[in-house]
Amino acid sequence: MSDETLNTDAQRRFPVPDYDEIPADLRGRIDEETERAGFTPNVFAALAYKPSHFRAFMAFHDALVDDTSLDREEVEMIIVAVSGVNHCYYCNVAHGALVRIYAKQPTLADQLVANYRQADVSDKRMAMLDVAVKLTEHPTEVSEADLQRLRDAGYSDDEIWDIGAVTAFFNFSNRMALFADWRPNDEFHTMGREPRE
Amino acid sequence: MSDETLNTDAQRRFPVPDYDEIPADLRGRIDEETERAGFTPNVFAALAYKPSHFRAFMAFHDALVDDTSLDREEVEMIIVAVSGVNHCYYCNVAHGALVRIYAKQPTLADQLVANYRQADVSDKRMAMLDVAVKLTEHPTEVSEADLQRLRDAGYSDDEIWDIGAVTAFFNFSNRMALFADWRPNDEFHTMGREPRE
Amino acid sequence: MSDETLNTDAQRRFPVPDYDEIPADLRGRIDEETERAGFTPNVFAALAYKPSHFRAFMAFHDALVDDTSLDREEVEMIIVAVSGVNHCYYCNVAHGALVRIYAKQPTLADQLVANYRQADVSDKRMAMLDVAVKLTEHPTEVSEADLQRLRDAGYSDDEIWDIGAVTAFFNFSNRMALFADWRPNDEFHTMGREPRE
Amino acid sequence: MSDETLNTDAQRRFPVPDYDEIPADLRGRIDEETERAGFTPNVFAALAYKPSHFRAFMAFHDALVDDTSLDREEVEMIIVAVSGVNHCYYCNVAHGALVRIYAKQPTLADQLVANYRQADVSDKRMAMLDVAVKLTEHPTEVSEADLQRLRDAGYSDDEIWDIGAVTAFFNFSNRMALFADWRPNDEFHTMGREPRE
Amino acid sequence: MSDETLNTDAQRRFPVPDYDEIPADLRGRIDEETERAGFTPNVFAALAYKPSHFRAFMAFHDALVDDTSLDREEVEMIIVAVSGVNHCYYCNVAHGALVRIYAKQPTLADQLVANYRQADVSDKRMAMLDVAVKLTEHPTEVSEADLQRLRDAGYSDDEIWDIGAVTAFFNFSNRMALFADWRPNDEFHTMGREPRE
Amino acid sequence: MSDETLNTDAQRRFPVPDYDEIPADLRGRIDEETERAGFTPNVFAALAYKPSHFRAFMAFHDALVDDTSLDREEVEMIIVAVSGVNHCYYCNVAHGALVRIYAKQPTLADQLVANYRQADVSDKRMAMLDVAVKLTEHPTEVSEADLQRLRDAGYSDDEIWDIGAVTAFFNFSNRMALFADWRPNDEFHTMGREPRE
Repeated sequence: MSDETLNTDAQRRFPVPDYDEIPADLRGRIDEETERAGFTPNVFAALAYKPSHFRAFMAFHDALVDDTSLDREEVEMIIVAVSGVNHCYYCNVAHGALVRIYAKQPTLADQLVANYRQADVSDKRMAMLDVAVKLTEHPTEVSEADLQRLRDAGYSDDEIWDIGAVTAFFNFSNRMALFADWRPNDEFHTMGREPRE
Repeated sequence: MSDETLNTDAQRRFPVPDYDEIPADLRGRIDEETERAGFTPNVFAALAYKPSHFRAFMAFHDALVDDTSLDREEVEMIIVAVSGVNHCYYCNVAHGALVRIYAKQPTLADQLVANYRQADVSDKRMAMLDVAVKLTEHPTEVSEADLQRLRDAGYSDDEIWDIGAVTAFFNFSNRMALFADWRPNDEFHTMGREPRE
Repeated sequence: MSDETLNTDAQRRFPVPDYDEIPADLRGRIDEETERAGFTPNVFAALAYKPSHFRAFMAFHDALVDDTSLDREEVEMIIVAVSGVNHCYYCNVAHGALVRIYAKQPTLADQLVANYRQADVSDKRMAMLDVAVKLTEHPTEVSEADLQRLRDAGYSDDEIWDIGAVTAFFNFSNRMALFADWRPNDEFHTMGREPRE
Repeated sequence: MSDETLNTDAQRRFPVPDYDEIPADLRGRIDEETERAGFTPNVFAALAYKPSHFRAFMAFHDALVDDTSLDREEVEMIIVAVSGVNHCYYCNVAHGALVRIYAKQPTLADQLVANYRQADVSDKRMAMLDVAVKLTEHPTEVSEADLQRLRDAGYSDDEIWDIGAVTAFFNFSNRMALFADWRPNDEFHTMGREPRE
Repeated sequence: MSDETLNTDAQRRFPVPDYDEIPADLRGRIDEETERAGFTPNVFAALAYKPSHFRAFMAFHDALVDDTSLDREEVEMIIVAVSGVNHCYYCNVAHGALVRIYAKQPTLADQLVANYRQADVSDKRMAMLDVAVKLTEHPTEVSEADLQRLRDAGYSDDEIWDIGAVTAFFNFSNRMALFADWRPNDEFHTMGREPRE
Repeated sequence: MSDETLNTDAQRRFPVPDYDEIPADLRGRIDEETERAGFTPNVFAALAYKPSHFRAFMAFHDALVDDTSLDREEVEMIIVAVSGVNHCYYCNVAHGALVRIYAKQPTLADQLVANYRQADVSDKRMAMLDVAVKLTEHPTEVSEADLQRLRDAGYSDDEIWDIGAVTAFFNFSNRMALFADWRPNDEFHTMGREPRE
């Protein structure tokens, strides 16, 4: 993998380090992701600027997608709805690709980026997105009534915690991406756009 | 054209009329557009609900794109940046396709939908988009200084009027689309996404 | 009509053309309006800067007031409530005069300009104004529930479409007026202020 | 004066007391104002609900207009610009009348109510209104730079204090008027609308 | 009391006068407060810049706390919740001390400053704070339904008026403090922090 | 440590687990913090609800305070300014204590909670706080000019990254705290309030 190169345009306000200068554990993670996706997602190139943040970011991300009571497509739907109202170019596009793939719906990401209220989702998931966007835009106004609405829609307490955690974490991630001007790989724009089988 | 059918899901809060019940002049316009695009853009199906509004809407749209001192790609860039901050699903997707085609840039629409400030555009066009978004979000705050900035960036008075008019018109169009819940045709999501030649 | 003159202070950020240089069809419309009102409303002088926009603007305006299922006073009430929250000086004053005249209520326009919630209108029309202002200020938040509220208040689907269309159009018109700094004629400030008969 | 009556529609959310039940000192003030204006401004009828608040309100109002280094027309201009952005019907109309009278400009109040940025005022007074509206809408953002701008425009420290105090006080007064739904007397709508001499 | 000195850092954008130059009636009030508190609250030093405003301010303040149907701790709770959302350093700290003392709850002020919705208060008082904060942030949206909610919670009309008046007055006071950059005395930060008996 | 107990009121919308049911590695961390602080900060009790999130949260927190080019007091100042505008009760109070301790300024936390613009900090740190609050409230508007302002104030690129990362992370943390209704320990309210030596 010594011929691996990172996209120097992955972020515009901080430098992207050379692959060879990155600590070995990070290179390992980068290699895995590159093998899985067929390209190195720019978030890895960007976060390599600060290895301790790279590690912690990935630890949190992995906890959110691996140790979750939500469906993976629900996790990605929250991420894109939140990134849509936060106007985060990187997350809209990179996680938009994941929404298309996990939900097997080629137009869903464009709906969530634009206006989650117009998205083709079940009433249950619309309740989930309503609370995620409220926690993003008006965090003090989230009340016990909002959690009750999620329970009434069929979510367990563990799922509700996860809805809150994914939402909160992408309010962090969106701000990192906007602060450093992260740029999505070209590949993300088109992944999963073929009509569902 | 008696076998023409309109997408009944073109808008969700008002009915879409049968093609055969639409006045002849509107059918003519629909036929032209259908021939040009290869499908009938849903905006025509939606506006057919009220023929007098269909005619006036198209008259204004045509004036904005035909009798303009701006480049067509500039017109479409303004539309998508404005529709992005207004969170209009229909206009993001339909005019996003036109941005990709006229600007020959397959990722530009996703940039403008997400956050025009991260878009790959010249300084001149960023000035244009700054004023368009300001007129959208904080219309009372647009001042003589904003117009002067456009002049300094190289825009003529005629072009500045057109920047204002396109912006203002899509503040109308976005609200019609959100009010009636217009849905973009599936075709728009993928048009122009192939890499530029 | 060769002695007709347009108010050069009709707009402050773009020039007002000489009456004689305006295309004949526009002069015809201006003459009609001047005869009806006793003076030339400044919107005509302002839009004469760009004849194609003048024509399309008037086509839409005419469709909204002539081919409508709403009462004319309802149309004007929506316009003034929308222009009040958009802080548009021209529309507040010019359409404020029309509200006073069509509704035969000399204080209604000042109520709608200030705060439509304090206006002396029926519950039915307050529902109409609530939705119009919501579509103006928070367009993504207008939901099926808002349309149902209008139906419950007694509005037909055709009337509801028209409420949306008038609101949306004046979000365009207000932005044109603010962008170009349109100024209302002095006459509008006092028209219709005499107590109702 | 035993035949004096107060407008029972002066406020809609709290009762208006009978003139005869009001403490003598308040009746004295009411009589004076009635003699001066030719009618009893509704603010007196409204505040009579709570005599201790009536007295304190008038004490503050009198200090702001009598012990001021500003021109009276400047005081009224601030009040109307502030009440315009706060959407206060009572203050827009009652103080709008005073703006017309003190500034001898029959259209100035409608300008300030709609959008102070379009008002026909000097650069010096526009600086004053900019700071007043900023203190109203974004009070934490008022900085030393804003005060310096007022000094540069020609205002003394005493005048700057008064600009702040008038602005702040009408943020109180507007909220009282909106909370209790104060209604301006019909007379205020038309006072001072005759063209200036 | 000729050795009395006022804190020259009481406000940063206007001078604090010498104690000896202040009119006798104001010195009397200052002396009383100093004796009661053990120090001179900086609001007195700040307002001494303009004696007529000092007198009117204190007249209103005294009416609000002395002639009220609310509990004193309710008055102070409203003040701190309002000052919290208005981000007023002086009022948060000075009235935060009073909340701790009158409510005998050492953590309540920090709750109200941060986010009144998380405060340990009864449902009745939460209704009171909801309306106070709504009148502060969205004054036009306060409706008859809000007053009815207060009645349902157990507040009389007199108490409701007082809730509105305290809220409105501190929208004035907060803006004076922010405009002149008033600074709370060090003593206020720690008063009442001992655990309740 | 079998007698260790966690505060069951640490969060109000999710249960706090029994100490004995918590995985050993988390108990180890809790024990360390309890020994250092003299009490168990409630954030540990709250996050113990979901061990994988506890671990990732602490990994990120530790990276932000241990592997940083900023002074620790700068880190805490950013946290409190951000938590102040986000109205987060837990973070205001818990990190307010840390600001007082690390900065050795007993009133600084109350300033930052209320309104960072009134805080007694150097111009350099005010620039840091301006950018942190902008990234919190208006993340899309942070531009290259903001980063340049930080460089001009004397911050290195590494420090600027850290300013962004701390800000972004507490936009996550604040939302977790508000979502689950985390409550600060009583001890935090008074720590560090003694005058600096």
